[in-house]
Amino acid sequence: MINKPIFKKSLEMRRSLEQNILKFCPLGGFEEVGRNCVFFEYQDEIIVVDAGIQFPEEETPGIDFIIPNTTYLEPKKRDVKALILTHGHYDHIHALPYIIEKIGNPIIYAAPLTKALVEKRFEEFPNLPKLKFQIVRNGDKLRLSEYFTAEFFDIGHNIPDGLGFILDTPVGKMVHFGDFRVNRDIKGNPIGENTFRRLNEMGIHSVFLDSTNADIEGASKSEETVIKELEILFKKAEGRIVVTTFASLLDRLATIIEISEKLGRKVAINGRSMKDNIQIMKNLGYLKVKKGQIVNVEELHGIKDDKIMILTTGGQGEPNAGLTKIANGEHKHIRFKPTDTVIFSSSVVPGNERSVQTLQDNIARQVNEVYNSKFLDIHASGHAPKEDLKLVLELVKPKFVVPANAYYFKRKACAKIAREAGMPAENAILMDNGQFADISKTGFKVTSQSTPTDYVMVDGLGVGDVQEVVLRDRRMLAQEGMVVVIATISRENGRFIKNPDIISRGFIYLKENKELLDAIRTKLKHILGRLPRHQHPEADYIKTLVRDQIGQLLYTKTKRRPMVLPVIIEV
Amino acid sequence: MINKPIFKKSLEMRRSLEQNILKFCPLGGFEEVGRNCVFFEYQDEIIVVDAGIQFPEEETPGIDFIIPNTTYLEPKKRDVKALILTHGHYDHIHALPYIIEKIGNPIIYAAPLTKALVEKRFEEFPNLPKLKFQIVRNGDKLRLSEYFTAEFFDIGHNIPDGLGFILDTPVGKMVHFGDFRVNRDIKGNPIGENTFRRLNEMGIHSVFLDSTNADIEGASKSEETVIKELEILFKKAEGRIVVTTFASLLDRLATIIEISEKLGRKVAINGRSMKDNIQIMKNLGYLKVKKGQIVNVEELHGIKDDKIMILTTGGQGEPNAGLTKIANGEHKHIRFKPTDTVIFSSSVVPGNERSVQTLQDNIARQVNEVYNSKFLDIHASGHAPKEDLKLVLELVKPKFVVPANAYYFKRKACAKIAREAGMPAENAILMDNGQFADISKTGFKVTSQSTPTDYVMVDGLGVGDVQEVVLRDRRMLAQEGMVVVIATISRENGRFIKNPDIISRGFIYLKENKELLDAIRTKLKHILGRLPRHQHPEADYIKTLVRDQIGQLLYTKTKRRPMVLPVIIEV
Repeated sequence: MINKPIFKKSLEMRRSLEQNILKFCPLGGFEEVGRNCVFFEYQDEIIVVDAGIQFPEEETPGIDFIIPNTTYLEPKKRDVKALILTHGHYDHIHALPYIIEKIGNPIIYAAPLTKALVEKRFEEFPNLPKLKFQIVRNGDKLRLSEYFTAEFFDIGHNIPDGLGFILDTPVGKMVHFGDFRVNRDIKGNPIGENTFRRLNEMGIHSVFLDSTNADIEGASKSEETVIKELEILFKKAEGRIVVTTFASLLDRLATIIEISEKLGRKVAINGRSMKDNIQIMKNLGYLKVKKGQIVNVEELHGIKDDKIMILTTGGQGEPNAGLTKIANGEHKHIRFKPTDTVIFSSSVVPGNERSVQTLQDNIARQVNEVYNSKFLDIHASGHAPKEDLKLVLELVKPKFVVPANAYYFKRKACAKIAREAGMPAENAILMDNGQFADISKTGFKVTSQSTPTDYVMVDGLGVGDVQEVVLRDRRMLAQEGMVVVIATISRENGRFIKNPDIISRGFIYLKENKELLDAIRTKLKHILGRLPRHQHPEADYIKTLVRDQIGQLLYTKTKRRPMVLPVIIEV
Repeated sequence: MINKPIFKKSLEMRRSLEQNILKFCPLGGFEEVGRNCVFFEYQDEIIVVDAGIQFPEEETPGIDFIIPNTTYLEPKKRDVKALILTHGHYDHIHALPYIIEKIGNPIIYAAPLTKALVEKRFEEFPNLPKLKFQIVRNGDKLRLSEYFTAEFFDIGHNIPDGLGFILDTPVGKMVHFGDFRVNRDIKGNPIGENTFRRLNEMGIHSVFLDSTNADIEGASKSEETVIKELEILFKKAEGRIVVTTFASLLDRLATIIEISEKLGRKVAINGRSMKDNIQIMKNLGYLKVKKGQIVNVEELHGIKDDKIMILTTGGQGEPNAGLTKIANGEHKHIRFKPTDTVIFSSSVVPGNERSVQTLQDNIARQVNEVYNSKFLDIHASGHAPKEDLKLVLELVKPKFVVPANAYYFKRKACAKIAREAGMPAENAILMDNGQFADISKTGFKVTSQSTPTDYVMVDGLGVGDVQEVVLRDRRMLAQEGMVVVIATISRENGRFIKNPDIISRGFIYLKENKELLDAIRTKLKHILGRLPRHQHPEADYIKTLVRDQIGQLLYTKTKRRPMVLPVIIEV
C-alpha cells in the first residue's frame, strides 16, 4: 500500500506534464516546394493542415506526382479531428483523394473556393466516401475539438480565398499563414497591417511562415502595378492577344478577363482546367462578367481581331496543352496570325526552360510579338519576399517562428530574417520533414521523435508501388539504355542450342554494328562454354558473371555502360 | 563558230555574277545556345568561324555533347583556308578534335589564351594531326587567302583574349563580334567606343551580332561593380571563404584571386579544370600573383581560417565535382566548418536547378552563410544586353545585321533592336542553321540553298552513332521502364517448353506483384497457343501481336505503358 500512491502520483505528474505538450510535425513541404502537410497533436487529438502533391523532378522520372507519407497518422486516424485547407492550390489539396480515408475522413475546414476546387478534384474519384465540409471565412472562429479552436483570417496570395488561421491550443496560440504575401497598394504600402497588429495584441506563441521567397530581396509588388503593365501591353497590340498563364493562378485569370472587358475585347478560353476554374469562380460570384463577354473559341471567326483576347493553358510547353496545339497548327479552331501578340504571364517551372524556349521560338516565327516575364514583370509572386516577412514578424512579435513550406536553404534565410526582426536566434525553429517538436507554454523544442517521410509516389493506378530501385533503373536506362543477352543452352551437354539473341534499346543502334554484336556473342559463348558442368547456368552467380563481363566488353568498345540483362534458358 | 563566243560570254557573265556573291551559312548556334560554327564561302575559298559543342538537354538523355554537322564542308575540305576562333569557351572550341580533320586541318587563327585552351583540349586526343596555329592579337591584319583578309580587335567577354574581327571580302567588310558585351566603367559609361566609331568610318557591310541577351533590358554591368560587391561579401566573412564558379569564367577566377590577395587570404584551388585554367593564365602572364599566394589544399590546415579562400568547381551540383565532394564529406582534405562562408558566383544552368538547390541545402546545414546570385548580383553576364546592342548598331551603322549565337526568339529580339537603332526591318537577317545567304555588294539575301544540320552526337567513344531512335527509346525507358517477355516454344508442337520468363526494369517491382506476373504469363500462352501451326512464331507479325496485347494488359492493370520487348525462342 505504501508504494501505490507514490506511483499514482508520479503517473499523474507525468500525465500532467504530457498534457502540457503540444506536438508539431511536418509530413511534407519542409524539404521541397510541394506536398505540404503538417499536423498538431495534443493528447488524443490531431489537427492536420493541407494535403498537397509535389510534382515529379529529375530524380523521379515518369512519376505522376508525390504525396505526403501518412504512416504516422494511419493507426491514429480516429484521433484526427479536423483537416484545415489553407487554399486551393495543387500543392495544398491535390493529395486529398489518396489520403482522406487513411486519416479517417475528418471534417474539412475550407473557404468556399477551396471547397469547390476539392469537389472538382474528387469528380475523378467517384468511389471515395462523401467529404464532410465545414465552410469557413474571414473572421470565423470555431471549436475543432476539445482542445483546439481555430479562428480564420484572410491572407493575400494569388488565388482567392486564401486563409491563415490562429490555432488556439492548451499551450498557446499558433498562427499558420498558409501561402501568403503582403498585399500592397500602388505606392507599395502594405494593406491589412491591422490583422498583424491584432495578432500581436492576442499574444502569439508561434508562427508558421511561408519561406518560399525568403531568399528574395525586397517587398511584394502591388497587383495594381501588374495590372498597369498588362494594360500597356494590351493597348500596344493591334491584332489578337493571346495570354497564357497557370490555370491555378485564379487571381491572374480574373485580372486578365477584367482588363479585356475594360478594353472591349471578348474573351475565349482554351484549355479544360482553365475553363473549369473560371466557371467555378463565376459560380461563386468571384468573377463578374457581362453576358456575352466570354465566348467559345468556335465563335472567334465572327469577331474582329482587335476585339479578341484568348486565354490559354500550355505556357510551360506541355505537349498536349492549348498553346502548344495552336503553335503546332493542331488546334481545331485557332491558328496564329502574323498580327497576333502573345504574352507569357507565368514564370517558367524549373526543368521546363528548354521546352518553353522551343515553344516561344515556334510562336515568335508566326506572330508579331511575344512577351515573356523577362520583358516586363507581368508575374508577381504569391509568396512574401524578405521585406514582407520581416514586416510580419515585427508586427506580430511571436515568441517562436517556424520557417515553413520550402527547402532548408530558404527556411534558413527566413530564420535570418527573424534575427533581423529582433528575435533571438534560438527561437527560429528549423526542422525537417518527419521531425517532431514538443511545444510547451514557454518552449519549442525539436525532439528525437520522428516518423517516415519517404516519398509516396503516384504512377498510373499505383500509389506507393514505385520504389527507389525502379527510379534508379529508369535514370540509368535514360542515360545509357540497355542490352538483353539471351543464351539458350542444352541441359544435356551445356552447348548453345542457337546463336545468342541480343536486344538493345537506348544504347547504340546494334543492327548497324554487326562487329559489336559478334563480339558480344563470342564473349557470351566464351563465358558459358568454360563453366564446369556441375554449375547451374541459370544461377545468379553465372548471371552476375555474364553481366560484368559483357558490361566490361561494351565499356571497352564504346565507353558506355548500358544496363546488361542476361537471360539464360536451359532446355 | 557563231554560237561559241556567245556561250563563252554568257559563261563569263555567269562567272562574274557568281564571283560577286559571298555565301554565308551557320552550321550551328542559330537555333540553340552552343555548337557555334559558321562559314563564309567565296568561289573556292571557305573561312570557318568557331567549332563549339552544345551540352545535352532533356531531349538528348545520356549524350555527352553535340557537335556541328560538317556534311557540307567535308567534300570541300581543300577549300577551307582558315578557321578563326573568337575565344576559348567550350561552345566555341570544344568540337575541334572531332571536326578538324573533316575540314582539312586548316590554319587556326586564335589569340594566345584561346590557342593554349585548344592545346589543353587536344592533350586528350594524342592521335590527331598536329594543329597549325597563327597567333593573332588586337590590331593584327592578315591575309587569310586570295579573297579574304581579316583584322582582329579586342572585345569584352568573361574570358580574356576574346576577339572580334573584320573580314574583308570582295563584296564588302563583314564584322563578327564573337561573344561579347560592352565593357563599362564604374559609372556605367561604355569603354572602347572608338573601336565601334572606327568601324563606322571603314564602312561595314554586315555585322554578325551575339544575341544571347538581346531579350534582357538594360546595359552591361561594370566588372568593377561586381568586384565591389564581392569585396563586401569577403569582408563580412569571419571564417574561411569558399567560392564556386565555372572553370571557364577565367576573368572571374582572376578577379576572385586578386581580391583574396588584396584582403590577405591565401588561395587554394579545388578541381582539375580550374587548376588547369589558372595555370594557363599564369603561364601566359595573364594572372600575376605573389609567390606563395596560391597554396595546395593539403597545406590549408596550417593557415588560420580568416586567411583562407578556397576556389572550387562543382557549383552546378555535378556529382563528382569539388564542391559536392566537400559537401558530402568525401573530400580528402576539406571539410565544411560552421564558420565558413560559401559563395555561388555563377548562374544556374537550366536543368540543374534541383541539384543546385539540394547542394545549397546540404551546405547551408553545415556552414554559417551561403550566398547565391539571387542575393547579390555577383554574376555579370558576358553577353551584351539590349542597350549594349543598340549602342553598337548606332555607332557602327552597318548596312545589314545578322543576329547570331542564340535561339530564334532572342535573335528576333535583336532584329527589333536593330529597328530601334534606325535600321530598315528588312536589313536584319533572321536565318536558321543550315540556311545559306547570298551576299552581294549591296544585298544580303537568304536563298533556298541549305545543308543538313541534324545533331551529331558524341556519346562515349561514338561520334554520330546515337540516333533519334535511340534517344526516343531512352526517353520512353526513363518515363515508363520496360518489360521483356520470353517465350520458349517447341518447334515440334508449338507448346511452351518452360514457363515464360519475364524481366522488368523501371516499371513496377514485379517480384512483389505476383498477380500481374501470372496475368502476363497467361496472356502470353493465350496469344501464342492460338496461333495456326503454319505461322512462324518468331515472325515480326507475332511479335507485334505480343507487344500490343501485353502492352494493353499492362495499361489496363496499371495505367502505365512500359516498353514491351517480346522474345520468342523456338527450340
